[in-house]
Amino acid sequence: MSDRTRIAVLVSGGGTNLQALLDAQQRGQLPSGEIVLVLSNRADAYALERARKAGVPTAVTERRQYPTQAAFEEAMLKEIESHGVQMLILAGFLAILSEDFTRRFPERILNVHPSLIPAFCGKGFYGLKVHEAALARGVKVSGATVHFVNEIPDGGRILLQKAVPVLPDDTPETLQKRIMQECEWVLLPQAAEMVAASLLDQNEKEI
Amino acid sequence: MSDRTRIAVLVSGGGTNLQALLDAQQRGQLPSGEIVLVLSNRADAYALERARKAGVPTAVTERRQYPTQAAFEEAMLKEIESHGVQMLILAGFLAILSEDFTRRFPERILNVHPSLIPAFCGKGFYGLKVHEAALARGVKVSGATVHFVNEIPDGGRILLQKAVPVLPDDTPETLQKRIMQECEWVLLPQAAEMVAASLLDQNEKEI
Repeated sequence: MSDRTRIAVLVSGGGTNLQALLDAQQRGQLPSGEIVLVLSNRADAYALERARKAGVPTAVTERRQYPTQAAFEEAMLKEIESHGVQMLILAGFLAILSEDFTRRFPERILNVHPSLIPAFCGKGFYGLKVHEAALARGVKVSGATVHFVNEIPDGGRILLQKAVPVLPDDTPETLQKRIMQECEWVLLPQAAEMVAASLLDQNEKEI
Repeated sequence: MSDRTRIAVLVSGGGTNLQALLDAQQRGQLPSGEIVLVLSNRADAYALERARKAGVPTAVTERRQYPTQAAFEEAMLKEIESHGVQMLILAGFLAILSEDFTRRFPERILNVHPSLIPAFCGKGFYGLKVHEAALARGVKVSGATVHFVNEIPDGGRILLQKAVPVLPDDTPETLQKRIMQECEWVLLPQAAEMVAASLLDQNEKEI
């Protein structure tokens, strides 16, 4: 067995959360894990460029290339298995994953959500919509949550949360930026290391 | 007109939030307001004793003494009006207030809720139940919210929120204590002063 947990990061867009993970790895803050694959569901995702710059293998599986959701997920699984991946991190991954898929990786898929779950989460709450809803309700505190992915949208076990103030002049964009910089980019590498270390421990016990 | 906004605090129990308000007033941290009445819906509420020790007038109106909700609220209104009260603070007040009642005091009734609204609020979420639900969901951050009371349970405009960490060994009781001490007792006097000052400004403009 490897002495580090093998991680795939799933992306769809700019990949700022991927960059936070790559930077943490570079700084030695992910000692129990190694990012061995960046998998995108869009060929034009800038996240792929970030992966290449960091020397991490990439793969692209676009939903439209496959006749069914099952075939799409089968193609992703093939990539994941061929790289010996043991845990997944969703970093701005906007494709749907079926219950069949998520059940293959119980407590091995991490997601980051830009609110303090259970506030402003579940169906329809993604991207700027989350921050628009928070400002519409007039909350004075928001933040981000890293949680395991299961069959319930934003319903899996919570690993880490961090709060930041909502300021009187905030727009959805300024709130999004504060939560990314102060919460998501901080929490995601921490949670990745926690889970990677815990999976290493499990593997050692199994040997 | 008085040069301070006249405040009634409504209580049902031990009155620790009332004490936080009385202490703030004593320390000069409520310069725009004056607590002129403590109104309890229970004759045996220890909060009444706290009011007497601070020299604040008290009144008791128990629901069971009145044939209808309307008659009960009429009795409360009589007390409130006879003391020239301009704003109300619910500090652990467990009786129901009708829409007719709350509509008489638009943005003039404050409540403190022991969670970060919109998490763990609304019907059925009071006292320890709030903290039991937070621990059951496994959140890592909780806190308190001071908001205006309107016809929607915990649905009024939010004034202040403060977050604290949930710790791995927390019980509902330890979490409740941390949120009371670090959030509720801090936020409630701050919010009281904010609203009292804002009502003074309004009154000056009306004169």
